[in-house]
Amino acid sequence: MPLLDRALLGPGPSNPYPEATLALAAPLLGHLDPEFLRTLDSTCARLRRVWGTENARTLPLSGTGSIGMEAAFANFARPGDVVVVGVNGLFGERMVDVAGRYGAEVVRVDHDWGRPVDTQRLLDAHPEPSMVAAVHAETSTGVRSDIKELARAVHARDQRALVLADCVTSLGGIEVDIDSWGVDIAYSGTQKCLGVAPGLAPFTVSERAWDRRVQRPPTWYLDLNLIGAYVDGSSGGRTYHHTAPVAMIASLDAALGRILDEGLEAVHERHHAAGRLLHEGLVDLGLELFAAEGHRLPELTTVRVPEGVDSAKVRQVLLTEYGIEIGAGVGAFASSVWRIGLMGHNARPDRVALVLGALRAVLGR
Amino acid sequence: MPLLDRALLGPGPSNPYPEATLALAAPLLGHLDPEFLRTLDSTCARLRRVWGTENARTLPLSGTGSIGMEAAFANFARPGDVVVVGVNGLFGERMVDVAGRYGAEVVRVDHDWGRPVDTQRLLDAHPEPSMVAAVHAETSTGVRSDIKELARAVHARDQRALVLADCVTSLGGIEVDIDSWGVDIAYSGTQKCLGVAPGLAPFTVSERAWDRRVQRPPTWYLDLNLIGAYVDGSSGGRTYHHTAPVAMIASLDAALGRILDEGLEAVHERHHAAGRLLHEGLVDLGLELFAAEGHRLPELTTVRVPEGVDSAKVRQVLLTEYGIEIGAGVGAFASSVWRIGLMGHNARPDRVALVLGALRAVLGR
Repeated sequence: MPLLDRALLGPGPSNPYPEATLALAAPLLGHLDPEFLRTLDSTCARLRRVWGTENARTLPLSGTGSIGMEAAFANFARPGDVVVVGVNGLFGERMVDVAGRYGAEVVRVDHDWGRPVDTQRLLDAHPEPSMVAAVHAETSTGVRSDIKELARAVHARDQRALVLADCVTSLGGIEVDIDSWGVDIAYSGTQKCLGVAPGLAPFTVSERAWDRRVQRPPTWYLDLNLIGAYVDGSSGGRTYHHTAPVAMIASLDAALGRILDEGLEAVHERHHAAGRLLHEGLVDLGLELFAAEGHRLPELTTVRVPEGVDSAKVRQVLLTEYGIEIGAGVGAFASSVWRIGLMGHNARPDRVALVLGALRAVLGR
Repeated sequence: MPLLDRALLGPGPSNPYPEATLALAAPLLGHLDPEFLRTLDSTCARLRRVWGTENARTLPLSGTGSIGMEAAFANFARPGDVVVVGVNGLFGERMVDVAGRYGAEVVRVDHDWGRPVDTQRLLDAHPEPSMVAAVHAETSTGVRSDIKELARAVHARDQRALVLADCVTSLGGIEVDIDSWGVDIAYSGTQKCLGVAPGLAPFTVSERAWDRRVQRPPTWYLDLNLIGAYVDGSSGGRTYHHTAPVAMIASLDAALGRILDEGLEAVHERHHAAGRLLHEGLVDLGLELFAAEGHRLPELTTVRVPEGVDSAKVRQVLLTEYGIEIGAGVGAFASSVWRIGLMGHNARPDRVALVLGALRAVLGR
């Protein structure tokens, strides 16, 4: 079988930055090798810059993005804790499921898919929650919610509530500013705007959240007390927990280096510019965007499948004849929406031209 | 910084097979791409051959080896279940910790480190356990326990008890035969004898164990009901769970292909031959092996640090001057034992010659 060189323009994984791919294939180091530990320290320091945080506890967890969500609830939600979750797509739904498994009393606040979460409705849902959680960039609908506003409002009312943000599809693509926004717990995934293969979940937690962590969570693998003892070398010692995925971490470090060399603002602007081009181009093709105006993600665009068009067939032709992957919709919108990603290395005008040109040809417009 | 080309002769990670490294750097595919799903199916089929099983539920979990242990207890131990654990090293200790977190009533059976677990003592520990668990190849001590004998004895006495085996450091190195041994649940890691970077945990579970799985485990990420719906395409459909670590899976598939091309028996014999050479060579150097005779792993050798020798200093000189990583001991043996791995691609006479030659020089023998 020849290798296939796809343009990964779906909801992720995206095509990695070239530096990330090369780092994956570099000679392996042991997880306790001083040279590898330097790479790990570098990765954590670079993650802090990309997250916009000084949180000491900022690290890559050893699993794909969803493990970040699991770690968040496993380490910071106790049985009986009231957790308010804004649900406006699949990943809000998932938060409800995960928080419930750890025994939280979940108060879900449902929104129409395609709309952002409403800060006031989340505030009104419970007077004294332990945690308020929402998804910054809903991968299922292409919608951005205003986490900055949400965090400010939650903290203004109640010093105790923690704010948790799912940044899987935002980090490295659009502005995320953990400290100035006042987000307590956040996680991401490497395979979206960070431009790395799937396999790690960048995670960050504030001091105030850390002070309220679960001392012995039900999960051993994601017990942040144990993981921290390996990742944090500031006290001089490191205690082995699990074998770190060294190749993936080297790859993440390389991609973060590229992002910071380009400049975080420039990277965000590149995503915004590519997203604008795509949105305009889709409208020019006579297509209708799905996500609410003013809340559309540049890095993940949802567009309605035109009347009478076989959604799956178009995706298949794009994949097999053009080598382009775009995503189907999710849930009730599985066959009525497409999802087009321009994430990380793919946030470029040539990718926009490619997918618009191919869509124009396949749709005969 | 130039890249460092280490000989990874510690307890893992080992140097990957070249095919595994190349596959890591191949163009990425989406986790729902039909071509990637073919690779995933191939990986599961090849894992079945290497495990010696026809278990339908044989798959790579998205985390490093320890996530296999967590998945085993999360999905098959209920609060109050009696779990007998043979403890003869760090990873038996870890089983006690993990099983306890999931609420099991753990009956630990302690053995001297450096000795295999004793089947009769495990049988005597409880008359009607739900599960009996032990480590096949103890990475902390270099000891092989007889899982075949253990599984046979447990099943002969009690049809109900499940047998769980940690095969992190055995799979792909020494004989593992899940079906003929009667092991119900087993997991491994990619970074040892399978010759892949760390990041995946091959997992297998028998039908009889599957019928007794926890229906809604506390963990979402490791809920095998959900993961199975993605990995198993035999019913025609696949349901997205989490984004699979596609690059790591392609790499595992490539390494498994190499192992099966060489032939599983030939691979085992290569590990045995390399281990014998190393054991003889160490004794020739006047060193004393740590693990009990007759139970020594060929792929991971423990050797006592000679009187008056600074254990850490020797490891440091090997690393910095020779580019060779060997491991320290664990726990009470941290500075009195070294661990030398010859795993996967490293199970070769030239690696033995390299590490013996360097040790001879550094020890001045």
